[in-house]
Amino acid sequence: MTQGSSAQPGVIDLLGLLAYAELGSFFRLADDAGLAPSLRTKGQLAGLAATEQQHYQALHRRLAELGVDPEEAMAPFVRPLDGWHERTEPQSWLESLVKTYVGDGIAGDFYRRVAELADADTRALVEDVLAETERAEFVAEQVRAALVEDPRLAGRLSLWARRLVGEALSQAQAVAVDRPQLAALLARDPKVAEREERTGDSGLGDLAAVSRMFASLTEGHAARLSAMGLAE
Amino acid sequence: MTQGSSAQPGVIDLLGLLAYAELGSFFRLADDAGLAPSLRTKGQLAGLAATEQQHYQALHRRLAELGVDPEEAMAPFVRPLDGWHERTEPQSWLESLVKTYVGDGIAGDFYRRVAELADADTRALVEDVLAETERAEFVAEQVRAALVEDPRLAGRLSLWARRLVGEALSQAQAVAVDRPQLAALLARDPKVAEREERTGDSGLGDLAAVSRMFASLTEGHAARLSAMGLAE
Repeated sequence: MTQGSSAQPGVIDLLGLLAYAELGSFFRLADDAGLAPSLRTKGQLAGLAATEQQHYQALHRRLAELGVDPEEAMAPFVRPLDGWHERTEPQSWLESLVKTYVGDGIAGDFYRRVAELADADTRALVEDVLAETERAEFVAEQVRAALVEDPRLAGRLSLWARRLVGEALSQAQAVAVDRPQLAALLARDPKVAEREERTGDSGLGDLAAVSRMFASLTEGHAARLSAMGLAE
Repeated sequence: MTQGSSAQPGVIDLLGLLAYAELGSFFRLADDAGLAPSLRTKGQLAGLAATEQQHYQALHRRLAELGVDPEEAMAPFVRPLDGWHERTEPQSWLESLVKTYVGDGIAGDFYRRVAELADADTRALVEDVLAETERAEFVAEQVRAALVEDPRLAGRLSLWARRLVGEALSQAQAVAVDRPQLAALLARDPKVAEREERTGDSGLGDLAAVSRMFASLTEGHAARLSAMGLAE
């Protein structure tokens, strides 16, 4: 656990997770540039990536303000997030767009959870990040337009979206076993975290927290799929 | 030549070249992330890349304001700049830093040439970009610090810097043959461009312009090498 901060440890975990998620998305979006269909799209993609970088900087700064070493707070999430990116490398521009939309959606759920739990300054930061919704709309619109042009794509992209969430859940499970407090926070039940802290229980309590966290993670997924014109 | 703009065609060329150079640097810096020695450095690198992206956006906007299609203005420079990056892929973090410093230095010379030739609004944009000097200092400092720790690196990195400039000149030569006006601008002799425009001469005049452009390109190189603690 990170020392020297008065913030709830689960909140620090969440901020560290989101900071590394933004940094990872930045590099991943830049990597996907080779898939962009035109010079104009390549430029737009650079713009999206730069926004992720700004979010990363804001979270990094906030962690430092909370008395936490930002790199230390991010460290536990490097391997699971890198693992997710390695297992879900897009093979086409549309797969890259769907991944961006699904990944941002999950991150959005996590940001909202931080907003519920954290201090006023952190909440203000999170609300600023969440206000940048044009990006998600732009992405969903492009996917919908592609499906109008070629409806046969829907099946393959729906499978892809399912794989993205499946791999996210599998990485999340590994994180949850290591960090029951975080899993409990995401499961919207801080009492589980308290009890586990007290008893050192990392058995059944974990599994219950993990399953609640999974439910929470997949909650918004159906809505996001239909926003892109995809089936569950 | 791009239609519909009152700006000097050579200036549009320079802005297109710089816009694609910034976009290319953005993606190249992001690509080099794997070479970064720590999570902190990786974050700093994302910050540097995001700055390139801002410069790209500013140039893109300015080209549109000048009545030019930005993608059309960039198009002639995609192949030579991509070619330069492909032929000079850094194999270590230090090589990446030296490349950043050398590449930024050449871009800086081009920006200064734009400032001399362009309208007041474009000049203001260029001066804003050039004011961001901390970045170059941070890079040169890291190279100097590495050389203090291991002086044997100097020989290899000096060779690397020479290769970077050599490959830049070879790409520049190809561009200059296609675009004598641009070469003449960079050679600081607009009269050559006018004469070539008038006579359609693309023979000896070109070669003279190219050789003057080469002299101009390598002018600042020695100073940049010694700023990093490297020999010519």
